[in-house]
Amino acid sequence: MGRRVAVVGIGITRFGRRSDASLSELAFEAGREAIRDAGIEPKDVRFLSVGNVGAWSAEPLPAVLVAEYLGLDNPGSMRVEAACASGSAAIKVAYDAVASGSVDVAMALGVERMNESPTPNVVELIGRAGNYFWEFENFGLTFPGYYAIYATAYMDKYGAREEDIAEVAVKNHYYGSMNPYAQFQRPVKLEEVMSSRYIAWPLKLLECSPITDGAAAAVLASEEVARKLTDSPVWIRGMGYATGTSNLSKRQDFLGLEPAARAARQAYAEAGIDPERPYKQIDVATVHDCFSIAEILAYEDLGFARRGEGYMLLKEHQTYIGGLVPVNLDGGLKAKGHPIGATGVGMAVEAVKQLRRKAEPGRQADIRNGVALTHNVGGTGHYAYVTVYSID
Amino acid sequence: MGRRVAVVGIGITRFGRRSDASLSELAFEAGREAIRDAGIEPKDVRFLSVGNVGAWSAEPLPAVLVAEYLGLDNPGSMRVEAACASGSAAIKVAYDAVASGSVDVAMALGVERMNESPTPNVVELIGRAGNYFWEFENFGLTFPGYYAIYATAYMDKYGAREEDIAEVAVKNHYYGSMNPYAQFQRPVKLEEVMSSRYIAWPLKLLECSPITDGAAAAVLASEEVARKLTDSPVWIRGMGYATGTSNLSKRQDFLGLEPAARAARQAYAEAGIDPERPYKQIDVATVHDCFSIAEILAYEDLGFARRGEGYMLLKEHQTYIGGLVPVNLDGGLKAKGHPIGATGVGMAVEAVKQLRRKAEPGRQADIRNGVALTHNVGGTGHYAYVTVYSID
Repeated sequence: MGRRVAVVGIGITRFGRRSDASLSELAFEAGREAIRDAGIEPKDVRFLSVGNVGAWSAEPLPAVLVAEYLGLDNPGSMRVEAACASGSAAIKVAYDAVASGSVDVAMALGVERMNESPTPNVVELIGRAGNYFWEFENFGLTFPGYYAIYATAYMDKYGAREEDIAEVAVKNHYYGSMNPYAQFQRPVKLEEVMSSRYIAWPLKLLECSPITDGAAAAVLASEEVARKLTDSPVWIRGMGYATGTSNLSKRQDFLGLEPAARAARQAYAEAGIDPERPYKQIDVATVHDCFSIAEILAYEDLGFARRGEGYMLLKEHQTYIGGLVPVNLDGGLKAKGHPIGATGVGMAVEAVKQLRRKAEPGRQADIRNGVALTHNVGGTGHYAYVTVYSID
Repeated sequence: MGRRVAVVGIGITRFGRRSDASLSELAFEAGREAIRDAGIEPKDVRFLSVGNVGAWSAEPLPAVLVAEYLGLDNPGSMRVEAACASGSAAIKVAYDAVASGSVDVAMALGVERMNESPTPNVVELIGRAGNYFWEFENFGLTFPGYYAIYATAYMDKYGAREEDIAEVAVKNHYYGSMNPYAQFQRPVKLEEVMSSRYIAWPLKLLECSPITDGAAAAVLASEEVARKLTDSPVWIRGMGYATGTSNLSKRQDFLGLEPAARAARQAYAEAGIDPERPYKQIDVATVHDCFSIAEILAYEDLGFARRGEGYMLLKEHQTYIGGLVPVNLDGGLKAKGHPIGATGVGMAVEAVKQLRRKAEPGRQADIRNGVALTHNVGGTGHYAYVTVYSID
């Protein structure tokens, strides 16, 4: 196996409507913070992976710009894209660059500026992340519709009610209200979620992640370098990834995202986590709640709950702090926001922040085993990346 | 350092106007051939990097589609993009995935379908690979213009004539005429190049690479797996990469691509090649001749000729078979074509084919040291990747 790799620096911008900053400036905000946090100089970064989808971007080839704004000195660089899992793909590429011995210090930086285009246009472009040729053009589905199919199938099979699924928004807005980087920083009541307008039945406006601008960055280093830089490196202990089918018609069912479950098993095997009871070892998790139902499916795909019982886990507040395994204490995609190329890196930032016990008051998990998990999905399981972080 | 990595399978499509095949079908053509050539099953590919720019594509998120068409079994996958060096970025990511121990078998697949859009639109979109905000919008330069700046500076400084630079097209069309996969398979005389119309003075139509559809694929494997699969693996022995400035105004001069020279030094150091006389060890090279002048600059950036003497090297036929170091025996971007996301992988395919001594009659280099080089540039040195391949 390759060398051990640690995250030694993190940075993140405020998420939201960021008309005050260009793509390069957003990237600078996060990247500069990560470099400072790592205690290195820009020239030390020898490889840069930029997670960015950018189908709506005026700067469609962003890696060189980001490297230049950050003042890096001729690193290797590229953009990587795996739909809404692009940020985790960037982490994987930076990880491999260090683990392989190619470089000692790499940066994964996710950035997206979705408000460059009018919202309907962005939603349409994201919709193409399905199989455009076979499905999008014929059915015209966009992502609220895709996830609504999962929600209806889940409700039908397991008897979950709309209210049960809507509780995801309540939890994530609650924790988002304590995160100064979140797009939405106000709690919402269940009644408010339930009375918001339908986007694609049974999913309502307050169950959908928003259109977001933002960036996040992580500096990764080899063990030797990490030990010199910090007394508290956070190790990447396991990484799982899978690519599913882009055709809805080929899926076994609409009750879970099979690639996410596969990615979890791979990550657990690498990290030495018991797949039967992962919650015994994982102190805190961020999962891909692009729509409320997606978080429920994630509980089950990750083995936090048995099939059909994910919504019960939430009902019992087992994914709040103090429960079985707290999930999305940063507000999740729902309240923190979902700048799609940045989201996966933002999850890494949150995992490290939690493991360092540096989350803001009220949203810090109890760190016992020193293990955090991130779960990032592109499309509806077109891509899945699950990563396990650990303080030792 | 990481594990040794070999190329064990290659595949390529015919380049050109491929209205007969969708993006997925093009990818299938190349990928399936690479899998067969490697003697593996689709399920053995555990990671797939797809080089694709695709700003004009109806399928803007192609990795999942490519994986599915090829019948892969839930590998990790992503798209990577580094402008016209995207294919080499895909090779690098697949290399690191194997070298790091993450997987034993990975595939790099480049694919581009540039004829989906009208040519002026594609040229405009490629033009954005410069710094859009500072330069493209203000100056309106597209790539013929960018490289024309280099050509005029070079002619002015070193006294090269238009004819000297145009000789690149003559050589590359000559070799392209023997490559059944090339977009243009007919030789051209110097007079024909000289009398073709100006695109951006001094560059004429026959000095510009065309708009191309095509795909190429390479299967990479760890040493242990490679030894089982083949008696003639081709090892990746060195890889250099650099990211330059996206601002023309920040460049020292317009006489070479500094990031390409840096990438070459790094690749030479890793591969144990004497940077003073690399042509003593390199049997054959493919270089990024998106415009005729670019090949001349490449000679100098790679150390094949001293500064200002690259055009003399060509004049003396030193980059033909039998010369100092034969270059672009597949026709280069000029005649083989330049499907921008596929080009870097196509170069890898050519390097392996040459080292296996399987190039078509008339265009096979004399393989003495068993070393081949690829040089792939994104933009005008925004990205540069240099890779050294070797039979041992």
